[in-house]
Amino acid sequence: MNIVLLSGGSGKRLWPLSNDIRSKQFIKIFRKPENSVPMETEYSRGYESMVQRVYRQIKTVDKNATVTIATSKSQVSAIHNQLGGDVGISVEPCRRDTFPAIALATAYLHDVQGVGLDEAVVVCPVDPYVHDDYFAAIQKLWELAQAGTANLVLMGIDPTYPSEKYGYILPTSTDAVAKVDTFKEKPDAATAQKYIDAGGLWNGGVFAYKLSYVLKRAHELIDFTDYADLFVKYDTMNKISFDYAVVEHEKDIAVMRFAGDWKDLGTWNTLTEAMEESAVGDVRMDAACENVHAINEMGVPILAMGLKNVVISASPEGILVSDKNQSSYIKPYVDAIDQQIMFAEKSWGSFRVLDVEEDSMTIKVTLNPGHRMNYHSHERRDEVWTVISGRGRTIIDGMEQPVKPGDVVTMAAGCKHTVIAETELQLIEVQLGTDISVSDKKKYELKTT
Amino acid sequence: MNIVLLSGGSGKRLWPLSNDIRSKQFIKIFRKPENSVPMETEYSRGYESMVQRVYRQIKTVDKNATVTIATSKSQVSAIHNQLGGDVGISVEPCRRDTFPAIALATAYLHDVQGVGLDEAVVVCPVDPYVHDDYFAAIQKLWELAQAGTANLVLMGIDPTYPSEKYGYILPTSTDAVAKVDTFKEKPDAATAQKYIDAGGLWNGGVFAYKLSYVLKRAHELIDFTDYADLFVKYDTMNKISFDYAVVEHEKDIAVMRFAGDWKDLGTWNTLTEAMEESAVGDVRMDAACENVHAINEMGVPILAMGLKNVVISASPEGILVSDKNQSSYIKPYVDAIDQQIMFAEKSWGSFRVLDVEEDSMTIKVTLNPGHRMNYHSHERRDEVWTVISGRGRTIIDGMEQPVKPGDVVTMAAGCKHTVIAETELQLIEVQLGTDISVSDKKKYELKTT
Repeated sequence: MNIVLLSGGSGKRLWPLSNDIRSKQFIKIFRKPENSVPMETEYSRGYESMVQRVYRQIKTVDKNATVTIATSKSQVSAIHNQLGGDVGISVEPCRRDTFPAIALATAYLHDVQGVGLDEAVVVCPVDPYVHDDYFAAIQKLWELAQAGTANLVLMGIDPTYPSEKYGYILPTSTDAVAKVDTFKEKPDAATAQKYIDAGGLWNGGVFAYKLSYVLKRAHELIDFTDYADLFVKYDTMNKISFDYAVVEHEKDIAVMRFAGDWKDLGTWNTLTEAMEESAVGDVRMDAACENVHAINEMGVPILAMGLKNVVISASPEGILVSDKNQSSYIKPYVDAIDQQIMFAEKSWGSFRVLDVEEDSMTIKVTLNPGHRMNYHSHERRDEVWTVISGRGRTIIDGMEQPVKPGDVVTMAAGCKHTVIAETELQLIEVQLGTDISVSDKKKYELKTT
Repeated sequence: MNIVLLSGGSGKRLWPLSNDIRSKQFIKIFRKPENSVPMETEYSRGYESMVQRVYRQIKTVDKNATVTIATSKSQVSAIHNQLGGDVGISVEPCRRDTFPAIALATAYLHDVQGVGLDEAVVVCPVDPYVHDDYFAAIQKLWELAQAGTANLVLMGIDPTYPSEKYGYILPTSTDAVAKVDTFKEKPDAATAQKYIDAGGLWNGGVFAYKLSYVLKRAHELIDFTDYADLFVKYDTMNKISFDYAVVEHEKDIAVMRFAGDWKDLGTWNTLTEAMEESAVGDVRMDAACENVHAINEMGVPILAMGLKNVVISASPEGILVSDKNQSSYIKPYVDAIDQQIMFAEKSWGSFRVLDVEEDSMTIKVTLNPGHRMNYHSHERRDEVWTVISGRGRTIIDGMEQPVKPGDVVTMAAGCKHTVIAETELQLIEVQLGTDISVSDKKKYELKTT
């Protein structure tokens, strides 16, 4: 099957593990099946992220599935680091709602991946917490679209309670696959109960269709020739949802019921419900703790005593200690935190801020084997590298030299520099200057041997 | 007056702010009076430690008071850093109970400080949380001993409830100063109530006496000539409390009542009661938090939401999140944490561990102006210094050189090295080796210019 995973925004509601540059779908907190390959970082050994879990589940159900992730530029490095190079990525140049994102991904499948206009694709969020049966249902949905059952085939989740959080789909019959009668916006609980009594299903945000169908609608709404043209024009497009642009205008829609487990992990409360263990990382709890979950990304222990219904999360960005229910109100508090980014995954590896002073900053840089930083210089700071592990080569103002642990490289402001990792390579970088800023960076092309 | 402050053990019960090498009396969490001098570190600006608070209070009551601190070697640096050089320090070569400590401090006063045998001294714990009136009472106690009111003059705290945590003193009358009839060990609550009904007072652990009195008793129990001799023999002495060695054998004891505020800050629960503000450091709390206290020594924010009766404490050593009552059971959990020391105050400044890897460790070193490290070498590790702030001089294998921010010094194993700070000086030290250990250190004498 062809599947497009919509990998959305920054997810501040899971701070401090997610923030402006690190999204919730990349946090490694789910225990991997026993036969999986170990992970790289200390705390996450044996754990996988939402996106890794979903990708693994898709490949379990259909090892030939073609997976494309529709996302923003900021997530590309994390996706490659976590999923490798086999996954397709449709990069949105800027944030526009779900219709432009799905149109762009569909054009990408046709023009870049060579998927035929008569072939089906199923579009699904990247972060459902589900079992493999969900992706078996996704495959069935794809087959229904492929067979031309309807122009659009949706997934309807069997409701377990009258939720106010979801839209409802009312089918024309109680069959496993039925035509859709009508859609309902998020209701209050009493109305939700009426919908359920009338056979209503939760709208799971999953759409299956043939490429030609969405591309036709896209050409009606946008003046573009092909993927490349749409990519260039992306920032001129209106923010418009797929529901509003497509679903509301379509009469021929089918819905397939899904009655398995399905969770939406948007808040600490729902996320911790999905954790198989109460703690990830170095966490000690006394016997008086009840319903406490803790995730510790720091190198020092967390000790929790006598707490009830609390989530604790510590990362290089900060420390959250919250009553689980209260944690759903986190967003304005996180918005008010105006802080230096302390950890980031990059295309070439990752960095972590170790120390910040007025006229200096010390960071730890980890380069993945075979990768390198951009060749760059800074105008307003000097830098000192001390290699602490691994082997590689530095290029400093055009001069290439091998480096090993203990080697020190000093770079005055203006000096062009990069490091190329042969094995995984770690270094301590001390930045010195009165005006240290991420924007003080000039990139150069590099001709390597 | 002469006052000896007994500065005791490590106080693991206030982990992660106190640990094996950092004692609770040095944690800066009390808001200083408005006209005080600002402190050096970011989180503690405007805050003072228990020992600073007590020292300031003593000097407020009697600006000519001679203050001596009886303590172990491990606290000397912290005392000098926090109180400066005016305070006397009687260093216990090893831990022996209160009688050897008080005998040594008394010999120190006589033989080192030149205090006369007929002069009185008052001995008091370093960590009572009190107002100035307590030290006014201490001064009165000293005057009573000086006037020969009794061989021993104690402070009796007016009990506010039938506590099981304290010993009781039963006086012969209800006078402000009375002879002691009898002492009672820590009772159960019902017995405590009986003592209170009979006019009993809490034993505040404060003793005033003339130097000759304790030295005479010391010579009866220990074979020594003077302070220097006692210091050398200290490790051969039995562990014996002052109560057991002195108080129990003395008939002529007076007690003076004290009815002011008096708190013993041994646990997170009692410590947070004494905090004037609910948070120290970068802490954000939502309105749903009730009776929550947080102390944050880390450079990143803590966000607390919807918690009740909880203490949060984050330091380079770890993170505690505990129900306040439950926090009194912390000790076995902290004993089980076998961890690298992440922060330490030294005679010359402080260091903080920034990063630990298998074959390297990165630390940040802060030297106080005019101070230097020991001149030393390591056998099994190389080191790299990058100066990030301040001015000073390095001495590397005998060669002296000025250093400024951005200067890099590389030291192979075996190389003798030190750095002398002219201003406050900070550097990042990267240690490289397969067997990094604090015990890998050889010290040398240094002849500086």
